[in-house]
Amino acid sequence: HAYSTKEEGSARPIGRYPVPNKKDMPYDIVELMEEVEMKTGFLPNVFKAMSHRPAEFRAFFAYYNAIMNKDTGRLSKADKELIIVATSAVNRCPYCVVAHGALHRIYSKQPALADQVVVNWKLADLSGRELAMLEFALAVCRADNITEEHFQKLEAHGFDREDAWDIGMISAFFAMSNRIAHYIDLRPNAEFYTMGRTPREEKEN
Amino acid sequence: HAYSTKEEGSARPIGRYPVPNKKDMPYDIVELMEEVEMKTGFLPNVFKAMSHRPAEFRAFFAYYNAIMNKDTGRLSKADKELIIVATSAVNRCPYCVVAHGALHRIYSKQPALADQVVVNWKLADLSGRELAMLEFALAVCRADNITEEHFQKLEAHGFDREDAWDIGMISAFFAMSNRIAHYIDLRPNAEFYTMGRTPREEKEN
Amino acid sequence: HAYSTKEEGSARPIGRYPVPNKKDMPYDIVELMEEVEMKTGFLPNVFKAMSHRPAEFRAFFAYYNAIMNKDTGRLSKADKELIIVATSAVNRCPYCVVAHGALHRIYSKQPALADQVVVNWKLADLSGRELAMLEFALAVCRADNITEEHFQKLEAHGFDREDAWDIGMISAFFAMSNRIAHYIDLRPNAEFYTMGRTPREEKEN
Amino acid sequence: HAYSTKEEGSARPIGRYPVPNKKDMPYDIVELMEEVEMKTGFLPNVFKAMSHRPAEFRAFFAYYNAIMNKDTGRLSKADKELIIVATSAVNRCPYCVVAHGALHRIYSKQPALADQVVVNWKLADLSGRELAMLEFALAVCRADNITEEHFQKLEAHGFDREDAWDIGMISAFFAMSNRIAHYIDLRPNAEFYTMGRTPREEKEN
Amino acid sequence: HAYSTKEEGSARPIGRYPVPNKKDMPYDIVELMEEVEMKTGFLPNVFKAMSHRPAEFRAFFAYYNAIMNKDTGRLSKADKELIIVATSAVNRCPYCVVAHGALHRIYSKQPALADQVVVNWKLADLSGRELAMLEFALAVCRADNITEEHFQKLEAHGFDREDAWDIGMISAFFAMSNRIAHYIDLRPNAEFYTMGRTPREEKEN
Amino acid sequence: HAYSTKEEGSARPIGRYPVPNKKDMPYDIVELMEEVEMKTGFLPNVFKAMSHRPAEFRAFFAYYNAIMNKDTGRLSKADKELIIVATSAVNRCPYCVVAHGALHRIYSKQPALADQVVVNWKLADLSGRELAMLEFALAVCRADNITEEHFQKLEAHGFDREDAWDIGMISAFFAMSNRIAHYIDLRPNAEFYTMGRTPREEKEN
Repeated sequence: HAYSTKEEGSARPIGRYPVPNKKDMPYDIVELMEEVEMKTGFLPNVFKAMSHRPAEFRAFFAYYNAIMNKDTGRLSKADKELIIVATSAVNRCPYCVVAHGALHRIYSKQPALADQVVVNWKLADLSGRELAMLEFALAVCRADNITEEHFQKLEAHGFDREDAWDIGMISAFFAMSNRIAHYIDLRPNAEFYTMGRTPREEKEN
Repeated sequence: HAYSTKEEGSARPIGRYPVPNKKDMPYDIVELMEEVEMKTGFLPNVFKAMSHRPAEFRAFFAYYNAIMNKDTGRLSKADKELIIVATSAVNRCPYCVVAHGALHRIYSKQPALADQVVVNWKLADLSGRELAMLEFALAVCRADNITEEHFQKLEAHGFDREDAWDIGMISAFFAMSNRIAHYIDLRPNAEFYTMGRTPREEKEN
Repeated sequence: HAYSTKEEGSARPIGRYPVPNKKDMPYDIVELMEEVEMKTGFLPNVFKAMSHRPAEFRAFFAYYNAIMNKDTGRLSKADKELIIVATSAVNRCPYCVVAHGALHRIYSKQPALADQVVVNWKLADLSGRELAMLEFALAVCRADNITEEHFQKLEAHGFDREDAWDIGMISAFFAMSNRIAHYIDLRPNAEFYTMGRTPREEKEN
Repeated sequence: HAYSTKEEGSARPIGRYPVPNKKDMPYDIVELMEEVEMKTGFLPNVFKAMSHRPAEFRAFFAYYNAIMNKDTGRLSKADKELIIVATSAVNRCPYCVVAHGALHRIYSKQPALADQVVVNWKLADLSGRELAMLEFALAVCRADNITEEHFQKLEAHGFDREDAWDIGMISAFFAMSNRIAHYIDLRPNAEFYTMGRTPREEKEN
Repeated sequence: HAYSTKEEGSARPIGRYPVPNKKDMPYDIVELMEEVEMKTGFLPNVFKAMSHRPAEFRAFFAYYNAIMNKDTGRLSKADKELIIVATSAVNRCPYCVVAHGALHRIYSKQPALADQVVVNWKLADLSGRELAMLEFALAVCRADNITEEHFQKLEAHGFDREDAWDIGMISAFFAMSNRIAHYIDLRPNAEFYTMGRTPREEKEN
Repeated sequence: HAYSTKEEGSARPIGRYPVPNKKDMPYDIVELMEEVEMKTGFLPNVFKAMSHRPAEFRAFFAYYNAIMNKDTGRLSKADKELIIVATSAVNRCPYCVVAHGALHRIYSKQPALADQVVVNWKLADLSGRELAMLEFALAVCRADNITEEHFQKLEAHGFDREDAWDIGMISAFFAMSNRIAHYIDLRPNAEFYTMGRTPREEKEN
């Protein structure tokens, strides 16, 4: 099938830039998209939207892969998604909050935590470690000056300076992603809203 | 010579993460750094700082290259640097403001404009076209909702939707870069402060 | 059974003020709570928390009833819940966003709209009429000066001055409720998170 | 005499909603209004304005009565008025600041304190106890997250958790009242501006 | 008698810097202070506080005199005081709001207007001309960029560019005065609170 | 030669108010301007712009002189310029940032520090003493309430209360100057941009 800005069951396109026909896309991009679609069960709209610019598509997902799928460090997959949800909520990014809220539910098996973080992260049912992680991520998100005190607060919860880099880099990368989503007017796939809300839907990733 | 966090003539390191010894760096990174150093006359500190994480180094500069060195679109090199200066000033990023202010002076041959934009872009000696470009870039920088009205204002100055993407992407990429620079505490090279301030220093790039 | 600050399956109490034993509560309050519990299937925590102060319990729910269950005006039940979700999101009130998000899903049969409004109401899938309604509600929520221009914008979408009063009063009442919830540290019942997310759960109210 | 939106000596109506004729009002509302008028010497405009909606009139004044005229707790009548003045100043509500500023002067016999609080509460001639009380009230007013630290600061000045509830509830109720006054465009009675400014005007209440 | 930081009937000094003994002050300063005291009936505390620095005393009051007592332009004495009240309220300056609120009541013979402007200038009983004047003054107060549009709005109410300068200069001078009062912790004389509130107190100046 | 709003090599006038002909100016003003021009090598535009109002010209420069050229206190000439640069950057004043940035370079012989302070004073290469000085100056600049704690922080770096007054007064005076520059639309002379950037340009003052 062809990719398109139209989404089934919605009058609203997935973004304001045209999505090219599959046959006009470079082969490596089609290949990556098919792999993702097979694995996830549907193709997240960010892939469709970014395919409008193949060189930037490659750069964006290579970068994403380098920071989200690296094996080192103390951040779990759920931790990383939590950072994305919290920082994307500050930037009021519909796509990133909804898509990564779903991924957080899947990885953490906690169906309500991402929703809580979107409303008010300081009042969410978070551990002290998670609060410290989000406090650092949100300081980076706001482009605050980052001081030694910030690193010491992380260390009190077992995060070293390499973990701080990881947290900071994810926050920084989504500072970019949220803004791209805003100018594209990128919409989340309908599937994301319900993923991981009930036990039977959960799956390992 | 070896790269280091120390900078000649400064008591302050270039960042808070260690810079690896050249002999411990992957060959492709050394090669890129030597090429940049030869071309620029010195090695901008962002290369040293990012070499702490080779995979992220590659992703960061590949992305930078894809958006800053593309041939298409209506943005001149000076336009792109102006966007970076204006948005990095909002995020109060010492490295990006100083380094890209220098690049703007080089490319535009206007020695005072970047300084003016840092203080107050709306009062700077900008054309209507430049004001429209920065207005869009700064809306993206603030993570504002981007509406059709934003695109229409650009169109009134000859920027089409592909140019809008280019402006938005540069603003978004530096939303990321500014935040990385903040957590690294990245310092500009001393050379940047004076580059392009007087006619004889100017060179084509 | 007895009411308590403890919630099944949660280590965290529903609020920081003690909930009295059912046998120590005035009869009219017990009666109202049992009626609500029967109708809803569980007792929303706001009832337990407010029972700490019987006189204020009565005043609070009488007021709530006067504005939420009145028969006149152009606001549907779903409209009213949408106002509460949008304004409570601004005040970052976990209880009101989660509980009234659930009620909105039930009444509107739109499972994703409340989640969208929490993240970014201006980008949610709202009609022009709903946008105008929320724009007025949020002006009241922020304690803006309300001018004739505000009323004219509502009139353009078919809302007269009595509807404006209704919108304003709901926004004002939840300006109060959100703040009460904050000092009580009121937590939403676990049931609210999943209510109305899938078609079979829906019920008329 | 009949109630009206017109005020003697002013070209401006007391609000933008019509005030019903006394003969068209429910008897209990007329009775309450006559009692207040007899006691105060004039009828505060909030009674006239709210009579436009009898059910809400009853709910509003029942709630007001439950929190302002309760006998328990450590808050004096002057304390309660001070909370209202400070929080209504933040919301820039002309009616509540002027009317409750007058009541504060009457109850406290301090003719200048309310004026000072309106300009800058932290620089007003307040006791440490009053400063702590207003600090809590204003945290509630801003819809801040309320933490255990807030309660501890109150305890250091002799306020227990029930007093905290009282302070919080008054702040929350006037968060509502200020917003109602804004959409009604409610104007203070001329009498309030001068009440309690000179010793001979003072009276017990 | 000697000047002092102590004020009769108040435990709090008039400021945090010492007020010199009259006999240690330069003669021209004593002379000016005695003239003001005779004319006003008491010596406003700003004179006492500034006498700590004779050279700055002379500069401050010479400047004040040059802008407040000039004969040209369309601003009445009441207009000038209104600008000071509105801008000093934004800067939350107790001395300037209270002292110049009193002067406004005296000059305008409107006993409630300054109080209204302190709470919410846009809802005060102001003419269109006064609103335009304050809108300009407050733009200067906030250090906004001032554009041709600002001048055109003033022109629509009969203020030319020389009047704009006068409004802007008063706003700018009190931007300075408010900040001086803040670091001195300057307190208003008790007399200012009641001046001009009732008809018999009024006097020409 | 005659003074004028036109600047050589610029299409933009130095301000929006007319600059009088030299022959129409009072003699004392011409004399002062000629003295400044001789000393500096060019006439800073603030002199031209203020000459539009001779009485205010005299008051402004007398005040400036009283605080900038006084011999007492611990502030060096470079310290004073640094305060002006930091506070004028907050107010986004092109004239004051550029002109006093140049003066700072001249007095401090540090060619990059003012540029750093404009972007982000907390990350600039400042001593602890300079940071404390700017922290106080910026609190005054923002019209914050100034408390004993502010003075204690200054004392920890060797500044007594008289120095605090000096810092506060410079910050306050430029709160005024920045705002005057905004309504005049005052532009910096081209000479300021390059002054003091390279060693040979430096001169004692």
